[in-house]
Amino acid sequence: MTSKAAVYRGNKTFTLEAREVAPPAKGEVQIDVAYCGICGTDLHIYLGHMDKRVGFERTVGHEMSGTISAIGEGVEGLAAGQRIVVRPLDACGHCPACDAGHQHICHNLKFIGIDTEGAFQQKWNVPAHTIHVLPDNLSLRHAALIEPLAVACHDVKRARLQPGEDVVVIGGGPIGLLVALVARHAGGQVTISEINENRLAFAEKLGFRTVNPKLVNAAAFVAESTNGKGADVVFEVSGTQPGVDLMTAVAATRGRIVMVAIHASKPQIDLFQFFWRELEMLGARVYHPQDFEQAMALLEDGVVDCDNFITDIQRLDAIQGAFEALTKNPNAMKSMIQVSEEPA
Amino acid sequence: MTSKAAVYRGNKTFTLEAREVAPPAKGEVQIDVAYCGICGTDLHIYLGHMDKRVGFERTVGHEMSGTISAIGEGVEGLAAGQRIVVRPLDACGHCPACDAGHQHICHNLKFIGIDTEGAFQQKWNVPAHTIHVLPDNLSLRHAALIEPLAVACHDVKRARLQPGEDVVVIGGGPIGLLVALVARHAGGQVTISEINENRLAFAEKLGFRTVNPKLVNAAAFVAESTNGKGADVVFEVSGTQPGVDLMTAVAATRGRIVMVAIHASKPQIDLFQFFWRELEMLGARVYHPQDFEQAMALLEDGVVDCDNFITDIQRLDAIQGAFEALTKNPNAMKSMIQVSEEPA
Ligand SMILES: [Zn+2]
Ligand SMILES: [Zn+2]
Ligand SMILES: [Zn+2]
Ligand SMILES: [Zn+2]
Repeated sequence: MTSKAAVYRGNKTFTLEAREVAPPAKGEVQIDVAYCGICGTDLHIYLGHMDKRVGFERTVGHEMSGTISAIGEGVEGLAAGQRIVVRPLDACGHCPACDAGHQHICHNLKFIGIDTEGAFQQKWNVPAHTIHVLPDNLSLRHAALIEPLAVACHDVKRARLQPGEDVVVIGGGPIGLLVALVARHAGGQVTISEINENRLAFAEKLGFRTVNPKLVNAAAFVAESTNGKGADVVFEVSGTQPGVDLMTAVAATRGRIVMVAIHASKPQIDLFQFFWRELEMLGARVYHPQDFEQAMALLEDGVVDCDNFITDIQRLDAIQGAFEALTKNPNAMKSMIQVSEEPA
Repeated sequence: MTSKAAVYRGNKTFTLEAREVAPPAKGEVQIDVAYCGICGTDLHIYLGHMDKRVGFERTVGHEMSGTISAIGEGVEGLAAGQRIVVRPLDACGHCPACDAGHQHICHNLKFIGIDTEGAFQQKWNVPAHTIHVLPDNLSLRHAALIEPLAVACHDVKRARLQPGEDVVVIGGGPIGLLVALVARHAGGQVTISEINENRLAFAEKLGFRTVNPKLVNAAAFVAESTNGKGADVVFEVSGTQPGVDLMTAVAATRGRIVMVAIHASKPQIDLFQFFWRELEMLGARVYHPQDFEQAMALLEDGVVDCDNFITDIQRLDAIQGAFEALTKNPNAMKSMIQVSEEPA
């Protein structure tokens, strides 16, 4: 059986190849991939930032949806034809993080679609333990948003957000907006801080209060809108020094800051404010199984306007152009690849 | 009635003055101060770092013990002759922090002995709500350690330390050592990181495992002694960039870092580690009433070897020399002033 796959070859290049597909091994299932979104991480890979980790023979992609096409030996409770998504984490099971129950951030974690083969291919074999079966009323197109939405669910869970609390999301890109949507659904009063006017307009269309910290004093804006209290919860999603400056400036006394962004360099941080106002900062990375379940429930509830959130969908044959376009479009929310030949 | 007081006059100078003392006002008690330790903050004041906040007419001092000598109008449940310590915090009662139940870090907090008159004087009037009555078997000399020990109790409480957890204390000065003692009493396996050899020797004499990060790779040392896990709890007490570098390097996955130190500048911080290992950082400042009660109980239990911890005791008349000596002695633990004429 052959399957079309996009292979990252380094130097901003994908090649499309027809490959022989092995049947699913013991403990695996084989999936007909329907859709796969382009993650910020995939863009980093495309731009060459992760060559050492990924190599030049990898099919990437993990924000997917699809249908089980075959079942490997020893897999129970799953069947061909089931519509599913994959939680792309494979933990070692025997490191200190796994021992402590934190398998999702295992010290030897394999991120499926980065460290192992991913979903920008038509037939995909994955460990059966990664599967979440979709509810009937969720389309495969929308279901490809479950993975990034699960990230947002995990972030909000880390924040211990209570209904009525004031929330500031720093950075209004795809993850920032999903965090804002989940936080609002949990009862938060959400303000989004963002410097891109198109993203601000998109956030406003979704009903969020917004602030552009290039134009106004965002900390003063938040202080004013919270009677001097500040934000109970801050999500730092910008990955920038100004974002880090803002997060300590807007946080209320005892405010919780969730570190969602990946800061490649070491920014300066106002640790005095941590001491003075007993701030709290919590790192948040990927998700627990329950975050996937919550993400599915939120999509069913219509919490995300998926059709507006999906900026464009292109065919697997056009993946090279899709990545090129995305690097040139700072306004895009979610670009998706339709991996199956027929729209599902 | 006159009382001898040490007044900070700026420029590393205290003057000693005999002052008329007013009777305690409504809601106040008057105290015969017995002992008052020299806090790091007092040293900062002496060195001129806080002139704007303190001015040049302030009697400072807050790590005290004493005996109630008079009771103001409306004060109930207290009586002259009671041996006491003062929890030197006066909250406004109507700011967002107070509204949220965080009076100890009130936005308009008056720190008694910094923002108002302090304990380097023989007769001292304070609000009655600040009083904790001492158990009979605690000497006034030892009781002057309750305030800094309450800081340590608050720090360990913020860490949610569980028995058996691995703890690293970065900085082995007076507060670092008290934190280490409280953490060990709570069941923590404590390592102290410190670069001063005399402080290291003192910590070792108290039975702590120590590491000098100038001589060995402290992160590797902690990894090795925890089977690769790292420290479940880290207390950053050094207030230095190397301390901030070490805190993220030694923390276990999901480790909690308590920010005890006052970082006047904004250090660089490895935020990537917060994301990658879902670290948590908690600011900790001063104390709750329960932290004072716990500190008293720990002193009663003999958790602190007070006589060794108190480096020296000098008379109020010698306060100028005591401060001068302390700035020149990086090995000192706690220097105390005997404020009363007779040792209590
Ligand atoms: Zn992703
Ligand atoms: Zn593991
Ligand atoms: Zn103090
Ligand atoms: Zn207040």
